[in-house]
Formats: sequence, structure tokens, C-alpha cells
Amino acid sequence: MSITFEVLHTCKQTGARLGRLTTPHGVFETPIFMPVGTQASIKTLEPSEIKEVSDGLILGNTYHLWQQPGEEIIKDHGGIRGFMDWDGALLTDSGGFQVFSLTDMRKITEEGVHFKHHKNGSELFLSPEIAMRIQENLDADIIMSFDECPPPYSSDDYMKESVARTLRWAKRGKEALTTNQTLFGIVQGGLNKDLRRFCAEELVKMDFPGYAIGGLSVGEKKHEMYEITKFLNDVLPIHKPRYLMGVGAPDDLIENIINGMDMFDCVLPTRVARHGTALTTTGKIVIKNQTYEKDYQPLDLLLQTKVSRYTRSYIRHLFKANEMLAMRLVTYQNLAYLKHLMAEIRCAIKEDRLGDYYQTMKKNTNYFKSR
Amino acid sequence: MSITFEVLHTCKQTGARLGRLTTPHGVFETPIFMPVGTQASIKTLEPSEIKEVSDGLILGNTYHLWQQPGEEIIKDHGGIRGFMDWDGALLTDSGGFQVFSLTDMRKITEEGVHFKHHKNGSELFLSPEIAMRIQENLDADIIMSFDECPPPYSSDDYMKESVARTLRWAKRGKEALTTNQTLFGIVQGGLNKDLRRFCAEELVKMDFPGYAIGGLSVGEKKHEMYEITKFLNDVLPIHKPRYLMGVGAPDDLIENIINGMDMFDCVLPTRVARHGTALTTTGKIVIKNQTYEKDYQPLDLLLQTKVSRYTRSYIRHLFKANEMLAMRLVTYQNLAYLKHLMAEIRCAIKEDRLGDYYQTMKKNTNYFKSR
Repeated sequence: MSITFEVLHTCKQTGARLGRLTTPHGVFETPIFMPVGTQASIKTLEPSEIKEVSDGLILGNTYHLWQQPGEEIIKDHGGIRGFMDWDGALLTDSGGFQVFSLTDMRKITEEGVHFKHHKNGSELFLSPEIAMRIQENLDADIIMSFDECPPPYSSDDYMKESVARTLRWAKRGKEALTTNQTLFGIVQGGLNKDLRRFCAEELVKMDFPGYAIGGLSVGEKKHEMYEITKFLNDVLPIHKPRYLMGVGAPDDLIENIINGMDMFDCVLPTRVARHGTALTTTGKIVIKNQTYEKDYQPLDLLLQTKVSRYTRSYIRHLFKANEMLAMRLVTYQNLAYLKHLMAEIRCAIKEDRLGDYYQTMKKNTNYFKSR
Repeated sequence: MSITFEVLHTCKQTGARLGRLTTPHGVFETPIFMPVGTQASIKTLEPSEIKEVSDGLILGNTYHLWQQPGEEIIKDHGGIRGFMDWDGALLTDSGGFQVFSLTDMRKITEEGVHFKHHKNGSELFLSPEIAMRIQENLDADIIMSFDECPPPYSSDDYMKESVARTLRWAKRGKEALTTNQTLFGIVQGGLNKDLRRFCAEELVKMDFPGYAIGGLSVGEKKHEMYEITKFLNDVLPIHKPRYLMGVGAPDDLIENIINGMDMFDCVLPTRVARHGTALTTTGKIVIKNQTYEKDYQPLDLLLQTKVSRYTRSYIRHLFKANEMLAMRLVTYQNLAYLKHLMAEIRCAIKEDRLGDYYQTMKKNTNYFKSR
């Protein structure tokens, strides 16, 4: 097995876990947030900047890179890391989520999924074996099983059938893997706890080195998501990492960390950045708003980064003027903030005061106000 | 006067000038290329990168910044330099060129120009005095007279009338200036040598510390542009800087340097970058082309920059995938190349071999092939 994981401490206030994840390209404390480089680029940033605003573990998307530029070209570069010149650690998803979220005209068979390209409409096919082959060529440290990700409010019958198939696919992917990359199983089952337990227990029988939780943050309510992670906290083995896929809002991060989750990824911080929303230590800021026209303070009042040299007024101007630098600066800020938040959370776990930290964050920011 | 200029050497092969321009925010050897930061941002780049790919003197556009965010907000930041956090030297144009190139529904009076905003259609008015006031608020080291820039093929009668007005406006601007910023006069007169001579001589009588040449690179043929700069080389005073506005193609730079020009600005290197054309030491490359799909060499085969770490294949992928990083990397490359080219040209002038350098550049690159 090419990664190891140990739980270093459990917060006495909350039960949140502090862990250590050792990969071939870096050792990381968990909980960790992984910025998303869908197309072998964390949008607008260079690898030197990604170093600054991440903990050194990022994510690439199999579906997108399989289509453009294609797995062969990435293989020629020695994988995504060589392709984008990233010398940190890397995780890829399996393409499953994109197949079910981006495409239509899907036909699911036992063998795999027939579907059409999300833009050019060409006929495509993905299966557990193909997803493994592509991920081998992309050469990430941690890779994912090919799964079906049904809508959260699918019928129990459909969910049951889907979970059974996802489990068979997980087994086939595990058997197909020819490298020593670390393959995680993915727990599906929607909002049905029995199915979630069944799926998790069956995956644990296959003995994966880590478990991802899929099918959350896909349209369900926040409390529904938290219920499932809280439930799975008691089902999943303690000494294996738990990766909650697609979660990156500050409130969701801390809630799910309290529910025992260790790893997170999400396009949220980089996506909202491009639309002019900054995540800061004092809360969310819609920097395009008129309010900031003559605000000569830095974007983040407390966190010192290279973005601190610019005023809110300047960054607002860049958005109004459609300057790409605007997106770049706020992308940097948002990832820097999440890195800072995760470091603070890890520190609070270590010191058994994550509950206090949670209350302070709730009081001092607007991240919890959307509920 | 807050700048000084001296000619250090004249190339024995070509007559090109090597000069030294001393400004309040840096001492520069000329010929120099100034990247354009229209809206207080060199598109996609941060000031730390602008440092790397420029000689330290950049340009801002009065018209755009007057409209967004407005001169007051920039004044509050201590000028454009404070606004964008640029600690190098700065030049602003007067807005004249944009009034005549971006807007329609213009009404030119002796007092100034009534026109409509190029996007929102609001009624605007610029005059020599207003252009000075705005440029004072933007606080560049070098500023420009408010001029009319008529189309190159206007009638001689119209050109004559326009030049006379531009001269009256130059005088009014000079009188209106209340700071110790350095104000250049702008030579207009289209392709009419008599008018160009008249305009230059009248401006020289007003004793400006430097002379810009406007109304070129606006649609005329390359040889027509070169004829005018060659002609003005003998008309303009030797010991004052000559700034050829809006010129930045590699072939145009060297041709006009041979014709005695010292300063240049142009959006070309940054604009073509965003459309996927790279300027390199071995010539122009349309990086989006299929040819580069599996080209694992760096973008520029000879010039080492931070962009050298990426393959052409990766940069092409970024363009195909609509990743903003693509534009950022090629923008950096193109400015780095022009900086390199200008340094090579200055060295060749110093060593009296610019003619040889010109021949080599013509032989080894495709920059001269568009004619």
C-alpha cells in the first residue's frame, strides 16, 4: 500500500479527528482540504501559487482529462504531475460523478456506462476497468473507484440496485488495478442510512486503504448531509481516512470534520472567486458590490497573504473592468483562507477546543447564515 | 523638469540611438518597450511579474481609468501606482486616442470633444484642461498632451485643420499643468510629411521635454509608418526622447528603432497572447494549432523564463480547455520576449552591429513575413 494513515488525536470536545496521511509525494495532517484542478490547472494559478495556498495535495478530474488532452499525452508527461509541473501529491476521481452530473443520454449496464460527451455529443463508454486504466495513466497518488452517483432523492429501490452495482464495480476496479496507487472505495446510498451502512460494510470487507463518501453535496439539504456523515462516522473503520467528496463551504467543512471526516475537495472556493465572492476570516464578501467601491482595506482584514497588498476598491475595480487579475486574486484569497481555516481547525482539535472554535466561527462570520 | 534624457551612443551601422531616461521611479536605457496596463492591470499579471517581464516602465490609459473606477478613487490611492501597487515608473496617455478610436457620435469643438461612452453611451466631454486634471490625479511620471488622432487617410485639408487644433490644445495643456509631471507633446499630421514637420517644429518651439508620435500604427501600411518615423528622425531634436505610440510588433520595433525612435507601447504582445499567439526568440507560434498537441518542448526554445517549465503541449491543452492560465502564461512569455528583444537591440546598438542583428532576426524568425 502506498499511503499510510494514522489518527493522532481525537478532540475531546467534538470527536473530530486529527490524522496523518503519508503519501509518496508528501505527508499531510488531516483534516485537509484539496483544491480542484479539473483540467490539470487550479484555475488562474501557477503551481508555485498552489503550493502557497494548499497543503500540497490537490485533485484532478479523470473525465475531463480523459477527453482533453487525452490520457496518452498526460502519460507521456509522466502523469498529471509532470503535465502541469506539480511536485506535490495528487488525487483523481474516477469520472463517475461527471458521467452522472454533466452528461445525459446515459445507458447504464452491468459492464459500465454508455453516454455522450457533455459538449461535443460524441459517444463514450466508461467502466470500472477503463476508469482504472485512465487513472493509472494520470498517475495520481490516490485514485477512486468507478461508481454510480444517483440523485439524492432517487427511490429506495433504485438506490438499492445502484449501490449493489457500485459495489460490484468497486470489486472489479480493485481487481483491474495494476499499479501501487492507492485506491479508495466510494460509499454511496443517498440519504438512506441502511443502504449507506450496507455499502460501507461491504466496501470494508474488500479492505480498501481509504473510503470516500459520494452522493452528498449534490442537492440535498445541509442537515441531511450532516446526518449521513454523522451516521457513517460510527460505521467506517477508525484507522482509515474518510474523504467527503465535493464539500468545501466553510460551514460544511467544520460540521463534517466534527462528524469524523478527514479529507475534502470542492470547486466552490475557486468557482465563487471567479464570480466575485471572497471567503475571508471575517466572512463571505461579495466584492463586486458598490459597498466596496471606496473601501481601501485589504480583502481579508486578518489573514496576511500576497493579496493583502491590494485594496478592496482595487479588486472591485478589476471585476467591474472585467480584468482576469480579479479572478486570480480572489481565487488565491479563497484557497488561502481555506488553508488557514483547516490549519486553525487542526490546531483546535489538537487542543480539544474545536467546539469553542465552532461557536466563535458561527458568531464572527456569516458562513452559517445561508441555512 | 522631472525626467532627464541623454543619448549615450548612436549605432554606426544604423544610426539607432541608445539613451538613458531618468524618471522619479527608475532609470531606464532606451530603446524601451512599455507594456500596457489599460485599466491599471497588465492583463492577467501581478506587479511582481510585471517587474520580471518589463524594464520597469509601464503605461496606463487615461480614458478607461477616468471612466472606471474614476479619477477620484485612483487619487485616493495616491495615483495608479498606489492603486495597482506598482512601484516602478509610469506613463499615461491623454485619452485622445481612445476618444477617436473607441467612440462615435463625436463633436469636436475648439474647446474639446463631446462624445459618448464606448459602452454605456453616456455623454462625455474631454478637453486639454480636463485631460491634464485627470492625468494629474492618475499621477504618472510622464503624461501626454490631449490631441486629435484622425484616420491616416484623412484629406490634407482636414489634417491641416486638425494639426493646428492639436497644437493649440498642446499649448493649453502645457499651461494647465500644475504638477511637475513630465508632459510630452504629440506630433500628428498623418502621412503628410509637410504637416508632420510643421507639427513637430511648432511643438519644439513650445519646448516639451519629450515628443510622442501619434497617428501611426492606426491602419496605414508598414512602409508608410516607417517613412514617417524616418522623416521625423531628422526633424525632432536629438537630445529629447521620441515615443512612438501604439507600436509593439517585433519587426516594427526594430525598424523604428533604426529610424531613431526611443520609446514604444502597444497592447499587441498581451492581446495576441490571449488569442493563443506566442512571440518567441525563434518567431511567432500559434500555440493552439494541432502541430503542438504532442510538442513536449518549452514554448520558447532559447529564452529561459518561468514559462519554460511547461511544455507546448500543456499550454495548448490549457487553451483548448479554456483555462485562464493559458492566457497568463503566454502573456508572460510575450512580454518576456519583448524585454529580451529590446535588451538585445540595446546591446547591438552599443556594439555598432544593429544592422547585423536586424539581418539575423529577419533570417531566423517569421516576424517579417506578414509584409
